[in-house]
Amino acid sequence: MEIDKRIQFNSDGKLIHFLNIEGLSKDQIIEILDIAENFIETSNKKNKNLENKTVASLFFEPSTRTKTTFELASKKLSADFINIDIANSSTLKGESIIDMIKTLEAMSCDMFVVRHSISGTPHFIAKEVGEKISVINAGDGIHAHPTQAMLDMFTIRKYKNKFEGLSVAIVGDILHSRVAKSLITSLTTLNVKNINVIGPKILMPENLDTLKVNYHENLETGISKCDVVIMLRLQKERMHEALISTDDYYQNYGLTKKKLQSAAKDVIVMHPGPINRGIEIDSEVADGKNSVILDQVTSGISIRMAIMTLIIKNRA
Amino acid sequence: MEIDKRIQFNSDGKLIHFLNIEGLSKDQIIEILDIAENFIETSNKKNKNLENKTVASLFFEPSTRTKTTFELASKKLSADFINIDIANSSTLKGESIIDMIKTLEAMSCDMFVVRHSISGTPHFIAKEVGEKISVINAGDGIHAHPTQAMLDMFTIRKYKNKFEGLSVAIVGDILHSRVAKSLITSLTTLNVKNINVIGPKILMPENLDTLKVNYHENLETGISKCDVVIMLRLQKERMHEALISTDDYYQNYGLTKKKLQSAAKDVIVMHPGPINRGIEIDSEVADGKNSVILDQVTSGISIRMAIMTLIIKNRA
Amino acid sequence: MEIDKRIQFNSDGKLIHFLNIEGLSKDQIIEILDIAENFIETSNKKNKNLENKTVASLFFEPSTRTKTTFELASKKLSADFINIDIANSSTLKGESIIDMIKTLEAMSCDMFVVRHSISGTPHFIAKEVGEKISVINAGDGIHAHPTQAMLDMFTIRKYKNKFEGLSVAIVGDILHSRVAKSLITSLTTLNVKNINVIGPKILMPENLDTLKVNYHENLETGISKCDVVIMLRLQKERMHEALISTDDYYQNYGLTKKKLQSAAKDVIVMHPGPINRGIEIDSEVADGKNSVILDQVTSGISIRMAIMTLIIKNRA
Repeated sequence: MEIDKRIQFNSDGKLIHFLNIEGLSKDQIIEILDIAENFIETSNKKNKNLENKTVASLFFEPSTRTKTTFELASKKLSADFINIDIANSSTLKGESIIDMIKTLEAMSCDMFVVRHSISGTPHFIAKEVGEKISVINAGDGIHAHPTQAMLDMFTIRKYKNKFEGLSVAIVGDILHSRVAKSLITSLTTLNVKNINVIGPKILMPENLDTLKVNYHENLETGISKCDVVIMLRLQKERMHEALISTDDYYQNYGLTKKKLQSAAKDVIVMHPGPINRGIEIDSEVADGKNSVILDQVTSGISIRMAIMTLIIKNRA
Repeated sequence: MEIDKRIQFNSDGKLIHFLNIEGLSKDQIIEILDIAENFIETSNKKNKNLENKTVASLFFEPSTRTKTTFELASKKLSADFINIDIANSSTLKGESIIDMIKTLEAMSCDMFVVRHSISGTPHFIAKEVGEKISVINAGDGIHAHPTQAMLDMFTIRKYKNKFEGLSVAIVGDILHSRVAKSLITSLTTLNVKNINVIGPKILMPENLDTLKVNYHENLETGISKCDVVIMLRLQKERMHEALISTDDYYQNYGLTKKKLQSAAKDVIVMHPGPINRGIEIDSEVADGKNSVILDQVTSGISIRMAIMTLIIKNRA
Repeated sequence: MEIDKRIQFNSDGKLIHFLNIEGLSKDQIIEILDIAENFIETSNKKNKNLENKTVASLFFEPSTRTKTTFELASKKLSADFINIDIANSSTLKGESIIDMIKTLEAMSCDMFVVRHSISGTPHFIAKEVGEKISVINAGDGIHAHPTQAMLDMFTIRKYKNKFEGLSVAIVGDILHSRVAKSLITSLTTLNVKNINVIGPKILMPENLDTLKVNYHENLETGISKCDVVIMLRLQKERMHEALISTDDYYQNYGLTKKKLQSAAKDVIVMHPGPINRGIEIDSEVADGKNSVILDQVTSGISIRMAIMTLIIKNRA
């Protein structure tokens, strides 16, 4: 499926959906971070930004944190939030996704939050819905997870106060990670020149040369002097396909306190969660003083509030 | 089970439950349509009609659109809405429906929205609950689906501005369709004289002669010059029982653009959804200019808001 | 697992969690009953006691009434209520409970309502969460169900206007019942001297001698002249383990109208629900004039509102 990465913008270049980082300017990213920071300052206090709006969540893949933060963000913005129970819905009885979406649209839903295992599904939906409906990508296949990348940018800015001049490492299965792809685009747009991707060669995307990143097969070399280390979640089934054992992976790419010493002294360690302790990251690191993993979760609510607020404002 | 169709009225003849169309006067139907129209005019804006009331939804059969529209309607009326997760509830562990209902009643629920595969279950519940509790039938067995019929009447009035003089066709498995039965009663009450039911003989109810309808075995004959064509959802398991193949059904009763030409030029095509494209209806018709299928969904919210508002008012 | 029963108190002895009855003073219990009574007097009308607070429910065991009353109580207190769908959550994919809790805490949840099959899980969580988070035990293993005991105390006070001098019977599988243990502690704290436990010897806890209760193997002897009879729910799998047939159990411990005659004339009959009609209790008794079973359910909402209100006040 060809994915139209421009569909999220209206003719004035304003965001009316939120589907991918590609196409966003540096200023647009910074604007979202600034809106989120305002929410953080008021402890995400309830406001009326989405009053009389209805948000429907459609998670075709299971999720706890992303789904729950969208629900919490919606409630804090005073939206009505509807969780469509996919397992018990008509979709599985033969109704197509599009018929389901059109039906929800006819129920006056204003926004769909969509996660799907097939890359491009949120874009496909955005193309089909009416003029007033917005779609947010909560993770599509191996393509993108743009709200995760945005909350990661928020977390980096919070601790480093800048993007230019930073040295960032992303460790793991870059090939299958939707998070990694959205991260690389975000960092590049924010003028981060020193992006290092680390992992087994077999788990690197084919187009690695075209990305503005440095590849390292060795973890300690790759994170050397880095200001930010972002660990990806290991998916056991992918390792199996790649003929890599969990033990081997941990030996080579598991982040331990010892290996972390090659990074900058004030390095922050990030992870989109849920973490596999003792596989891609040691508990000593995950719970250690350099870890900002739980802070990422907190930022997730404010960032999602900010994105929803901006889109609804752009629609008005 | 004997179904008491008068139980929805109090001694003044006012609606205190909403269980079946039978017994409603023409004026009572029109009153509900008028209340719903007021909601539509304000885009179903939030109001306080059910403030401090609790609505519990009990769907013993799966549903997306009916359940979701009741949830949205409840929230727009400022009710607290509780979705009882039947699959994980105590009912399946041996508690009877009545004990479950009495328990929810003791939790100060004010209204139950009930769907059940056994005809008459909502009436049975209405008989058992206390004086202050209202029950709404969201579909019971092959008996009735009165809120669906009401939203269909709303849709017909919107497009045709009248009921008298209309020619209406209902196509499909009338025998097993709760929608069809509520539709026929509604149309008859609203003085629609020309009601045509169409489908294989084996899928017609035994009491067809006592209904004020014309039966046609042939689709094009049946919908000839009709102003309104209502397609019913084909249930594959019923066809199997009746020894009718899906292909044969489509050949004879699938609504195509060509067959629709025998209807009135400005015919509206309706369907309660979810539709089986290419089985009972062609995509060309479902998505065509005569289709008002998605408009039915939109009306569903306003109609349910109207029914809930009226019942609570009658209780006050 | 060692269960720290003091963890629910702060250094001033005030409740900041609600995990067990042990450690509560008589005055603290009475204070909660009084707060609940105030809510009852205003028909549990909505208030703003938990405005801008988020309550997350984590039920690792299925439940209808406890879970639903917590949801209703939260909404009446104006909290945002999030139901974590354990079956579809990351926990089952290898995330530990603690990582899940820390994640929810990072989402600014203020209160966790936890049910778990392992005794002590809510205490374990309370030990791990941050300073501002409260945990409520909604039933843990065979250990405690303190909100159930509190609503039972509320119901007893409502009907008997006192605790001292009362004669109370608890009938059934005391060994495995978390309700029974919380009841005995509550009644003892409230100076009820005459507590009778009744059931097969094999279903009595080993430490029976250390509890301030009288044991009776015979039902009619045990409930003789009692003011309050509390029946426990029979769990069929436990009877199977104890080699007791359901029929035998009913013969000996099923509460019939005839057997109830040995109790005081104005005895109240209680049951935490859901009831097994014709096994531990006859319908004639369950629905009879001495039964206050549904009143217990109603009290459940007010008591949970009271406990949540008190804890949040103590946190402020």
